[in-house]
Amino acid sequence: MSITITAFERSPDGGKGLARDTRVRWALEEVGQPYDVRYVSFQAMKEPAHLALHPFGQIPTYEEGDLALFETGAIVFHLADQHPGLLPKDAHARARAITWMFAALNSVEPSILELVIAKFQEGDKPWSKERLPLVVDRIRQRFGQLSTRLGDAEWLDGAFSAGDLMMVSVLLRTRPSGILDEFPNLAAYVARGEARPAYQRAFAAQLAANTGKPAA
Amino acid sequence: MSITITAFERSPDGGKGLARDTRVRWALEEVGQPYDVRYVSFQAMKEPAHLALHPFGQIPTYEEGDLALFETGAIVFHLADQHPGLLPKDAHARARAITWMFAALNSVEPSILELVIAKFQEGDKPWSKERLPLVVDRIRQRFGQLSTRLGDAEWLDGAFSAGDLMMVSVLLRTRPSGILDEFPNLAAYVARGEARPAYQRAFAAQLAANTGKPAA
Repeated sequence: MSITITAFERSPDGGKGLARDTRVRWALEEVGQPYDVRYVSFQAMKEPAHLALHPFGQIPTYEEGDLALFETGAIVFHLADQHPGLLPKDAHARARAITWMFAALNSVEPSILELVIAKFQEGDKPWSKERLPLVVDRIRQRFGQLSTRLGDAEWLDGAFSAGDLMMVSVLLRTRPSGILDEFPNLAAYVARGEARPAYQRAFAAQLAANTGKPAA
Repeated sequence: MSITITAFERSPDGGKGLARDTRVRWALEEVGQPYDVRYVSFQAMKEPAHLALHPFGQIPTYEEGDLALFETGAIVFHLADQHPGLLPKDAHARARAITWMFAALNSVEPSILELVIAKFQEGDKPWSKERLPLVVDRIRQRFGQLSTRLGDAEWLDGAFSAGDLMMVSVLLRTRPSGILDEFPNLAAYVARGEARPAYQRAFAAQLAANTGKPAA
């Protein structure tokens, strides 16, 4: 059954790999599933045809036969659930890997979304300069807790899993701000994720789509 | 195997049911699993014994034999995965129900967390009054999209599922602000969730714990 995902026709990050289709591409590469991409313009994302697939008018979406999914966490989970490679077989280890998926998306990413909003939606507001350090401190608090938990382990719980895929994807959003590099073990953890061949292929694919040329 | 969760020794909401243990209690009631509760003080939540269970120093946690989980989404998913009642048997319907769990936690709740922070952590800042309408408008945008998708359906995708449990739990956080009531179909959806006997039992249990007396 062929798989089709959607991605930005032109990613706002110009190919840095921060758009959420990269997470899904990465999961597809980890489990070895080929896929097609349908590119969607900002305008088309708000039109009925796309809203029928994604009620919040975003990317990525996932179509496989008559199954249609949205929401990156759900798509990555579906791939991890259906194919070997992203979730441990042991039931307890599997539950803990899924825990890290939810932790990435509900305990870590919200503080990062706050920063994105503070910069891109409220960057011109009179309070922007004074408020930004508070937003960054909330990210630092979470990163500090995560850094303590990770310690010098390679991955969050045993072997690499969908939980690491999601946590690495969330953390790397903060690299441009410099926050990630304040936590060397987290920065190294993200670098290990990025070094995986599956991530490299996913990154190259989104870069080629956004620049019209293959990755260097 | 007996189940033990953690909850606030004294919930900051005084028993309104908005603390996240209510979501887990609700799921436990839906799947008919008895459970014990260990109550944790704010101070104890930041101490090593609790941090070993929950790296972000929060509640709830979940212990069942030698399995220890944190993160509400993961705990509710684990219960839904292990027991009948919260996820459809059909594989596609199951994937869509899980999609709504992730949507509640990663596409809807972050905007609500922003409001909580704006009120309780930045309520005394000079920008608070001017900024609050922007935060509320971001919630309204999401709620509008969700309201359109829900339409006049009873639940988000067929029968009640863990996706509805999570979405209702997230939405009801905005009732005190009045935002929920601006979207009558969402308010009615939340009311349907709260009317479920399993929710009623969960709510009563957390209320009794927070007030020392049974629910009226």
